[in-house]
Amino acid sequence: MSPTSLFAQRAKPDDDTRTARRFTESASGDGAFMTASQCLAWLDAHREQWSYSVERVPLQELDGWYFAMDTGNLAHRSGRFFTIEGLRVNLSPARTTAWHQPIIVQREIGILGILVKEFDGVLHCLMQAKMEPGNSNLVQLSPTVQATRSNYTRVHQGAAIPYLEYFTAPRETTVLVDSLQSEQAGWFLHKRNRNIVVETTEDVELRDGFCWLTLKQIHELLRLDDVVNMDARTVLSIMPFAPPSAPPRATADDAYTEALRRSLDPQAPALHSLSDVLSWITESKARYELTQRLIPLLDTADWHRDGDRIAHREGEYFSIVGVDIQAGNREVGTWMQPLLLPAAPGLLVLLTRRINGVLHVLLQTRPAAGALDIVEVGPTVHCTPHTYRQLDPDERPRYLDYALGAAEDRVRYQARLSEEGGRFLNADNSYRIIEVDDDFPLELPDGHLWLTAHQLMTLQQFGNFLNVEARTLLACLHTLW
Amino acid sequence: MSPTSLFAQRAKPDDDTRTARRFTESASGDGAFMTASQCLAWLDAHREQWSYSVERVPLQELDGWYFAMDTGNLAHRSGRFFTIEGLRVNLSPARTTAWHQPIIVQREIGILGILVKEFDGVLHCLMQAKMEPGNSNLVQLSPTVQATRSNYTRVHQGAAIPYLEYFTAPRETTVLVDSLQSEQAGWFLHKRNRNIVVETTEDVELRDGFCWLTLKQIHELLRLDDVVNMDARTVLSIMPFAPPSAPPRATADDAYTEALRRSLDPQAPALHSLSDVLSWITESKARYELTQRLIPLLDTADWHRDGDRIAHREGEYFSIVGVDIQAGNREVGTWMQPLLLPAAPGLLVLLTRRINGVLHVLLQTRPAAGALDIVEVGPTVHCTPHTYRQLDPDERPRYLDYALGAAEDRVRYQARLSEEGGRFLNADNSYRIIEVDDDFPLELPDGHLWLTAHQLMTLQQFGNFLNVEARTLLACLHTLW
Repeated sequence: MSPTSLFAQRAKPDDDTRTARRFTESASGDGAFMTASQCLAWLDAHREQWSYSVERVPLQELDGWYFAMDTGNLAHRSGRFFTIEGLRVNLSPARTTAWHQPIIVQREIGILGILVKEFDGVLHCLMQAKMEPGNSNLVQLSPTVQATRSNYTRVHQGAAIPYLEYFTAPRETTVLVDSLQSEQAGWFLHKRNRNIVVETTEDVELRDGFCWLTLKQIHELLRLDDVVNMDARTVLSIMPFAPPSAPPRATADDAYTEALRRSLDPQAPALHSLSDVLSWITESKARYELTQRLIPLLDTADWHRDGDRIAHREGEYFSIVGVDIQAGNREVGTWMQPLLLPAAPGLLVLLTRRINGVLHVLLQTRPAAGALDIVEVGPTVHCTPHTYRQLDPDERPRYLDYALGAAEDRVRYQARLSEEGGRFLNADNSYRIIEVDDDFPLELPDGHLWLTAHQLMTLQQFGNFLNVEARTLLACLHTLW
Repeated sequence: MSPTSLFAQRAKPDDDTRTARRFTESASGDGAFMTASQCLAWLDAHREQWSYSVERVPLQELDGWYFAMDTGNLAHRSGRFFTIEGLRVNLSPARTTAWHQPIIVQREIGILGILVKEFDGVLHCLMQAKMEPGNSNLVQLSPTVQATRSNYTRVHQGAAIPYLEYFTAPRETTVLVDSLQSEQAGWFLHKRNRNIVVETTEDVELRDGFCWLTLKQIHELLRLDDVVNMDARTVLSIMPFAPPSAPPRATADDAYTEALRRSLDPQAPALHSLSDVLSWITESKARYELTQRLIPLLDTADWHRDGDRIAHREGEYFSIVGVDIQAGNREVGTWMQPLLLPAAPGLLVLLTRRINGVLHVLLQTRPAAGALDIVEVGPTVHCTPHTYRQLDPDERPRYLDYALGAAEDRVRYQARLSEEGGRFLNADNSYRIIEVDDDFPLELPDGHLWLTAHQLMTLQQFGNFLNVEARTLLACLHTLW
């Protein structure tokens, strides 16, 4: 075979552009199988059919889990899944420069994958009705596959994971997008998952608990509280989109949505070049020095453990609690595990602004205790407001009060969404996208920058730049055009 | 100020393209101040003028350094610079799955920066004649600034670092490229430096030991043994280039250099799309599980320490030795420090091939003990041949024998280049770029892929993908057009 024929065999010259165009078509395509409201009913039916139950139990009564004698770390007897250990953090320069905390350690890289296939010429996503014990409504819409390496190497001897073979090499599917993305770096040490979308042109057997939806339908569901789970949102966030054509009828939101559509365009004039964006991130990483050392959980100052839970002495931040799960159709029908219970809900806000007719979003670089690479790019506001309840306004996080005071008609997106229900209990956060007023201050504090949607999509392609909350908001932003 | 005027003030719509074009012009521009051979003479004069001396001393006699009582770790009394600690590595799946080794720990992110300025319309780089104790010829051409955070926060109370103010915020220069890049992950734990090129339009005072060179001149010097140091090479490797126009006169190498010029073009047909390239890296990261735990240096199995050095019991890999440095013009005139002494030289080879008229280079993903993110992208061959001297051919690294047996006329680039002389002693490696024969096997082993030069430049823009040896070879590749 000559190099030329090798090239002809494999070359896909404009594949990346074509992928973006096909996702965009799916985002305006009606589904071939069910409507979004039928999907909601289907999720409800699933929830009722299996009568899941999740009950709190003391940590010391968790089957399969134990506290190590020497360190006090909480671990599974198989040595797999995850552990709760202690972390000593030194961060400089910053107001709070050193602290101890418990942290979830899960070194293995799992798979969050969506299988897509064309029906009637439109890409559909194979989505799952999945129970996660930490979700307040238990069953939410999740990716086709959501598997830790422990899951898919069958450590817990459960049933095989449906559709896993479409995602693991050697595969017969085509990879459309594929990147490593981090998860909550305040709670996990260096945790990432492989976010991947693969396409098949073969017939796919539709198993119980799965359905095919277009991106338009998933976007409708993402505008509702507690329907699309975090794992689905992060996979949605790595999908590139091309600028869609304008809708046939004018609406009141024309200027905003038109600016958003233009923001998807690689050619749209951005306030900053891509080099400037990357330099902004590099500068932030060079500014901080972050030292992370795992320590025995027993040695974490200000945290205490009894047989029931692990908690901060003032009840702040979060605690680690145990749950007993009964479920009919998971890989294992019943199990117990620890979960991280946040002390209060978080608020995640993306401020947005039209600049020269192109929508820009305001992001910040923020260091985090468990970050793999010092800082990540987060939403404009990323905090737990409860933590700051007694502070003076000028000590509260930048833009928090602005976001809380925004007029209702400036709030373009608002929903309560839960974080990963396999690790966190009732981690229900409020997500908002707000259009700023015209008199919004132009001078930005250090570490903040206005980016276009296309620039965010570019960062997403390379992975490990946006934190999971910013990625959720990017997925939500795509529901607005 | 309206958003529009904000935009007008800051927007630089085609800056990234313009930067690539300006670097390309500098790579074909004669210098305004000295020729390449005059620069060589200037380096020699610098070497003679200051009569540097570097002598080996036992580790226990290093002024300012001590072995910690409890761990045996080697550290500086100031608590800064770097430490030599123990590392326990678990890597799966891999042939050797677990080992201990000493590792250099240097958490701070330093700056490797080149200041550029136009003279006669052509960008010139401000380069330095810099002594590093580990370089066999001591003085080499280095970036404008090469500073650890300890250096630039003045831990050792030396003189201020010349030109540092052009690189640190708030700066009055324009940042052209700026990314974090790793260094030898077999010897350093999670080490990265900020690689940055900034431009000034102001007058710059030319200090003793500095000179202005175009990229064409630096490329000429990079074709010679031991002239351009590692820090300069890695900064050169982040510079983007646009396809240059063909030279006026035909040469014997036309087909190869024309394919290389086309390989710089974002529009040139590549064997794989950028998504495929990124998926290849993601897949490699997901394939391995790498656990790194710092342990006391005293506990590293198979390694021993006496007052003289730290070494492997069979004399393999490397040792840690001490040196006493006398120098006239460094920030501090005299000091002692540990250096890592490799047991044998390394061989770094890039195999290249024309595919449909576009030059492609063969890269591999490789895990490394101290990697921040499991694997990095390295050259086709990246090894210390001495380590494999007694193994059967099929146990030796893939393509090692192919590279060693390449006909002389297929070797497009060959030079002996030293690694970072501030940390490594006599780490002289052989770097080669080879054009493969037409019958080179098309089937690649797992973890290998053909990329274009433009795809490498794209990865470089985002940082943390290519290892430092691959970056050196990318810089060398640019000397061939």
